[in-house]
Amino acid sequence: MPYQCLTDMIADRVTIIGVGLIGGSLALALKKYRLVNSVIGYDVDSESLKQAHELGVIDSYGANVQGSVKGSDIVVLATPLLAVDKLFASISPVLNSSTVITDVGSVKNSVISSARRHLGDLLPCFIPGHPISGKEKYGVLAATPELFKAHKVIITPIEGTIPKALELITQMWTSLGAEVITLEPDAHDRLMASTSHLPHMLAYALVDYLSSTCEEDIFEFIAGGFSDFTRIASSQPHMWRDICLSNREELLHTMIRFHQHLGKMITAVESDNGGVLLDIFTRAKVARDNLICQDKCQEQPPSRRSE
Amino acid sequence: MPYQCLTDMIADRVTIIGVGLIGGSLALALKKYRLVNSVIGYDVDSESLKQAHELGVIDSYGANVQGSVKGSDIVVLATPLLAVDKLFASISPVLNSSTVITDVGSVKNSVISSARRHLGDLLPCFIPGHPISGKEKYGVLAATPELFKAHKVIITPIEGTIPKALELITQMWTSLGAEVITLEPDAHDRLMASTSHLPHMLAYALVDYLSSTCEEDIFEFIAGGFSDFTRIASSQPHMWRDICLSNREELLHTMIRFHQHLGKMITAVESDNGGVLLDIFTRAKVARDNLICQDKCQEQPPSRRSE
Repeated sequence: MPYQCLTDMIADRVTIIGVGLIGGSLALALKKYRLVNSVIGYDVDSESLKQAHELGVIDSYGANVQGSVKGSDIVVLATPLLAVDKLFASISPVLNSSTVITDVGSVKNSVISSARRHLGDLLPCFIPGHPISGKEKYGVLAATPELFKAHKVIITPIEGTIPKALELITQMWTSLGAEVITLEPDAHDRLMASTSHLPHMLAYALVDYLSSTCEEDIFEFIAGGFSDFTRIASSQPHMWRDICLSNREELLHTMIRFHQHLGKMITAVESDNGGVLLDIFTRAKVARDNLICQDKCQEQPPSRRSE
Repeated sequence: MPYQCLTDMIADRVTIIGVGLIGGSLALALKKYRLVNSVIGYDVDSESLKQAHELGVIDSYGANVQGSVKGSDIVVLATPLLAVDKLFASISPVLNSSTVITDVGSVKNSVISSARRHLGDLLPCFIPGHPISGKEKYGVLAATPELFKAHKVIITPIEGTIPKALELITQMWTSLGAEVITLEPDAHDRLMASTSHLPHMLAYALVDYLSSTCEEDIFEFIAGGFSDFTRIASSQPHMWRDICLSNREELLHTMIRFHQHLGKMITAVESDNGGVLLDIFTRAKVARDNLICQDKCQEQPPSRRSE
């Protein structure tokens, strides 16, 4: 395994499938911090792929996905979630038995199911991962090598994983300044349903509700809070459709519970119950203020590397 | 009317009741831009009042609310909404017939009802106003004279208003760099229910839901979007309780409709309907991106004053 022979490098050759914000940023970071010798890209959108190459985000690209992964030490899937299943099916016949495979998907159980379905003997080399560092911008033009610095990456290993593979992927992310955290796939998907997928649903629902039911000029009168509140409604629709469908059970559960919670608040407004409203607002404010305080206290300077 | 005799000044003496974020910022701005000779403060919280005086936010303060408004050319109510009714009742007997009265409340019909109930002959001198420039911080320490710059102030005049009074309040806000917009009170309250009050309800509901139903460590894993999304849940609980109860009908209407809208989204997730989800997300993204673009295009440099 080449990464053992190198001081700074973790592998010779990495293939990144999907050169959008996350894939492109990972490519840039791996190159900037000299963790690999070459980054091969692949994308179903050939324009994006050429652009990534022209911008120097990737070193080269294959004519097809199988060609792009052949001989790579690490293969990273950074595509929308619903593309993962077919990708596993097409790449698994051409991968080396020593190739380490990982992904960056926002849902882990669906990706793991696909891996089990298609990877066969390569399954122990698959490390499910999720860098929590998206933003509402997307595409290779938004890519930046510092995207993962001081952010968390959640890894959800499955039974039988080869320790060296886990070590390699952990090293990859920590070398880019990220903090790697290990969770069970179920815990990850439940957590993301609440803290990420539900907020996105609410932001999308709110903006869609307002734009479809109100007067045209309504957005002229928005206060600053609205703009922040709805920032995530500018996220990539296809990606979020995939996330919803891939994390369907957990998302549904949390959406239904939130829907009921909102219903209670409606009842409080309807019955002029200022006490209940004040309780909710106060509890939320305390939780939110604590969160921000915690954020500030926990803030670590990004890891420094001597280049 | 003294403001006619002055070049830069709009009035000799202004009283601001409620020296929190908005009242304190208005006091600072009126003084900084030399629009008045003196700013008298009053607050039911005597500590805040003393602090505002010590900080130089106000020039002096009365021992009671009646004493503080006597002889003032402009009286600004900048208190939580549920305090307004009693305040109108207590100040109206001691106001001059030439005093111009305004407020900064986030709901206009409830304030106008109180004004009708208590102001009597002074009603034509009352200009209902609402600067759209709050933030989640509050209290006199958060006050800043630039709070209103490049922000909108909505004015909702009622029948019989004295034109000079309307002109004076308009001049006050525009002199501070704000853009004054006139709306019907109903239109204002409906607009705010959708673009401000509903988003606050959702942010409060989300944070309260997450903190009350999920594991303790859930907030450790939040992405950047969550922090922005819930910023407004750090707003002042008492103020928002008052807003909810004061704008009950409009807020209830919009909350119920949003609740139904979210219900449709839940149905789409439940039935694996990626098409419906993609439609919602795409519509929302287009509306939100247009909004941001509009914001940038409409951005005006703050009005300059020669001091």
